[in-house]
Amino acid sequence: MVEFTEIGDVPSAEVERLRAVYGPLADSVRELIDATIRTEVDADTVADARAQIDAATARLRSRQADGPFGVQLTSGGDRMAWGNPVIGIRNPIAPPVIVKRDPDGRVYTDFELGAAFEGPPGHVHGGVAALVLDHLLGEVAANAESPRFTGTISLRYLRPTPLGRLHAEATITRVDGVKAYAAGYLADDHGPTVEAEGVFIQPKWAR
Amino acid sequence: MVEFTEIGDVPSAEVERLRAVYGPLADSVRELIDATIRTEVDADTVADARAQIDAATARLRSRQADGPFGVQLTSGGDRMAWGNPVIGIRNPIAPPVIVKRDPDGRVYTDFELGAAFEGPPGHVHGGVAALVLDHLLGEVAANAESPRFTGTISLRYLRPTPLGRLHAEATITRVDGVKAYAAGYLADDHGPTVEAEGVFIQPKWAR
Repeated sequence: MVEFTEIGDVPSAEVERLRAVYGPLADSVRELIDATIRTEVDADTVADARAQIDAATARLRSRQADGPFGVQLTSGGDRMAWGNPVIGIRNPIAPPVIVKRDPDGRVYTDFELGAAFEGPPGHVHGGVAALVLDHLLGEVAANAESPRFTGTISLRYLRPTPLGRLHAEATITRVDGVKAYAAGYLADDHGPTVEAEGVFIQPKWAR
Repeated sequence: MVEFTEIGDVPSAEVERLRAVYGPLADSVRELIDATIRTEVDADTVADARAQIDAATARLRSRQADGPFGVQLTSGGDRMAWGNPVIGIRNPIAPPVIVKRDPDGRVYTDFELGAAFEGPPGHVHGGVAALVLDHLLGEVAANAESPRFTGTISLRYLRPTPLGRLHAEATITRVDGVKAYAAGYLADDHGPTVEAEGVFIQPKWAR
């Protein structure tokens, strides 16, 4: 069973302090990920870099959570999904995608994907498009009081998505009891490249 | 248009040398990603770690490729998809998934997902399951002479996938001209958690 454990009840000022400490750390690691893929330095230089990286890891591990980050709640009732691989400001794997919400409920985001997300040369891995769209559709289908998890999702690839600046958005198309139907797309400057639709289901424990 | 640019024709001995230099570097960065998400050290210690990380990045960037890694070909005709976010041994975002192939064409993999891949607390992000399955289905649908890209893919989530040791596999169910139909699943110790099926299409330039 999946539950959103309320690990503490983090006050707003503390949330901002934590964001200022750990957000830039993840940004630095994102740069390092890109450099790790693209570097052409020799073996000795790699060894020196590794020694620095391993030393940084040891420092950070000197005090750490026993398990993964989870989803912590703030005193304002917001979820801090900071370990999330799509939106997590503390997860260097996350681009991160910053999701915005229209008054009418549509969610959208403008973000950039670089070398770390490459499948076909110069283009976004099809599965990365699926990762981002699954998240956006899930985000629009859920809300803070009532989480919904993916039931099914279908993706249609219209053409390859180039690396670089991208846009994605999602809307709810229908709600039927515990099920919410959502649709969305990923786009570059020339329009949609991948379309998605999915059914998201409220888990039994949240009904 | 997406093409597999033959950037060089890397001899086997050189492939092994490159693997030995750059593979362990990505392993170190994978550890750092996990530590970045889970660390609870104070702001000063984070600042020290960041300084080391930024120094390592600068070292690695002192000589680097202009763009993303691409897909380089070896003299044996193999593709070195080392920058790939699922299988890339040089991409710290990749778990990495090591894909094995049965004589009958089935592909499968056993791998581990930790804190960096968390969606619901303690569980794999639904989009990460999609990422891995898209890759596996694409891998089984394609072959070295004839790449195929995702046309459509549908995923059905049977239950939440726990973080930890996982198994995934895929097979071709049908080939119809330029289209290959593939199906597969992700599983934990108790059986399948996510099922996938997709249609993969040979691009015009490869026909």
